[in-house]
Amino acid sequence: MLIKRLAIIGVGLIGGSLARALREAGEVGEVVGCGRGKENLEQALQLGVIDSYTHDAGAAVEGADMVFLAVPLGAMRQTFADMKEHLMDGAIITDGGSAKGSVVDDCQAVFGEDLPGFVPGHPIAGTENSGVEASFAELYQNRRIILTPTENTSSEALQKVTDMWEICGSDVTCMSVQHHDEVLAATSHLPHMLAFALVDSLARMKENDEIFRYAAGGFRDFTRIASSSPVMWRDICIANRKALSSIMKSYSHDMADLADTISRGDGDHLLEIFERAKDSRDRYIDGILESPE
Amino acid sequence: MLIKRLAIIGVGLIGGSLARALREAGEVGEVVGCGRGKENLEQALQLGVIDSYTHDAGAAVEGADMVFLAVPLGAMRQTFADMKEHLMDGAIITDGGSAKGSVVDDCQAVFGEDLPGFVPGHPIAGTENSGVEASFAELYQNRRIILTPTENTSSEALQKVTDMWEICGSDVTCMSVQHHDEVLAATSHLPHMLAFALVDSLARMKENDEIFRYAAGGFRDFTRIASSSPVMWRDICIANRKALSSIMKSYSHDMADLADTISRGDGDHLLEIFERAKDSRDRYIDGILESPE
Repeated sequence: MLIKRLAIIGVGLIGGSLARALREAGEVGEVVGCGRGKENLEQALQLGVIDSYTHDAGAAVEGADMVFLAVPLGAMRQTFADMKEHLMDGAIITDGGSAKGSVVDDCQAVFGEDLPGFVPGHPIAGTENSGVEASFAELYQNRRIILTPTENTSSEALQKVTDMWEICGSDVTCMSVQHHDEVLAATSHLPHMLAFALVDSLARMKENDEIFRYAAGGFRDFTRIASSSPVMWRDICIANRKALSSIMKSYSHDMADLADTISRGDGDHLLEIFERAKDSRDRYIDGILESPE
Repeated sequence: MLIKRLAIIGVGLIGGSLARALREAGEVGEVVGCGRGKENLEQALQLGVIDSYTHDAGAAVEGADMVFLAVPLGAMRQTFADMKEHLMDGAIITDGGSAKGSVVDDCQAVFGEDLPGFVPGHPIAGTENSGVEASFAELYQNRRIILTPTENTSSEALQKVTDMWEICGSDVTCMSVQHHDEVLAATSHLPHMLAFALVDSLARMKENDEIFRYAAGGFRDFTRIASSSPVMWRDICIANRKALSSIMKSYSHDMADLADTISRGDGDHLLEIFERAKDSRDRYIDGILESPE
């Protein structure tokens, strides 16, 4: 059995699904949940996702050989502080935060350079739903998990976290903290900003009721991600502000250039852009369809 | 019977579905198809969507009391020219173009002010598929049709085109040409530009294979519209370049502002934007779900 006692700090879709997958694989002895809401934790207990719970992250990590942090990015630093005096010797800690630089900073602010058991991570998985009732053991199957070990991360810790995710059926890749934050800014954070900004700018127009009435077809899909949690996205933006604001500035230049190309009526250039985009998008989708989902 | 002889210039998803809906309602006597590709027209004949076909728009409109133009925006002017000497007295002409100012200009360039039977129109309907084999009679049911009559449009023509779409189960609204082009620039053309530009800018990055590998979840939905036809979108951009480049410039300013807000780490402002966007998007979706689809 890989893990004797697993502490899940934040028992929602992400944390709950990890606990379920490890339980189903028979690779975890005991799961302790930690969170603020009693109702959600009671539900996690009823569903058999956790064996017990506490509202105190310090108490939760006592005796745990593996700790998984699935709290909002804005709550990471306080969670590290709450855990600090309670971690077992040799405990391994990993997380599911969508930005990694800020989590590494938070960890160092609390522990200095002295937490070799910490393996920053990011499972590229999720659904539209949240809360433990949305969790399921298969969430991570055939999904990519990015781990961003620092100079300080021990190879044993990295190996154990890799093993944990592979047991869940995931495909684990390592990259640097900075590279992760740049790649995710481009592929996830930027698209969310585009969708939020589009819907917001339409909402601020005078006749916004009418505007939305004529939004059809692609608009619904395109703006789905603008229904994501505002608080979570505020935290992600702030956590990854450097990489994100830089790519947004470059994108806004691209948009201004495209507007000029349209203004000039330069059809050949437009066709070139649209064809390259369609081709990449179609190849990307083919790539997804090749791998089992 | 509303229409004795209907000429469909461009027998694809849009034109084919109109013919099917009118046939099913028993409101059309004969349907003549016109297009460039023999194979597609043969298929339309086999499927019973049309009764006969020609490759010559002039021949197609002979004796037709209703003409529907479903050709690319870039082909409108030539199609008007081809039809000019062949239209029956009192014939009514309407179209399905996604921009209206350019179609009105094309019509005037060919006919001057002298085509009172022309009712510019835009059915807000479509699917991911194209070609006559993708057409179906229910495409326009509960969909909005925008008509943009000009000063020159006769009230009889407007009434007959309205009746035609209502027979197809559509909800017909009138607005000015300019207003149509601004509304569609905001709700349809701008989102397509955002998706094309995003995918293109990721595709131009050095490690674009890797970038796309980590694109997950929302990215697929968000970029679906970047798989749309490059030629069609080139035509739409050029046809609606004024309204579109104007809204793109304003959007690119909004993006630069948002990048600044993120740079500054102004969480309260971010939360305000994201909450307003989520709220509008959720209300928009509730609005859709209330109406039968």
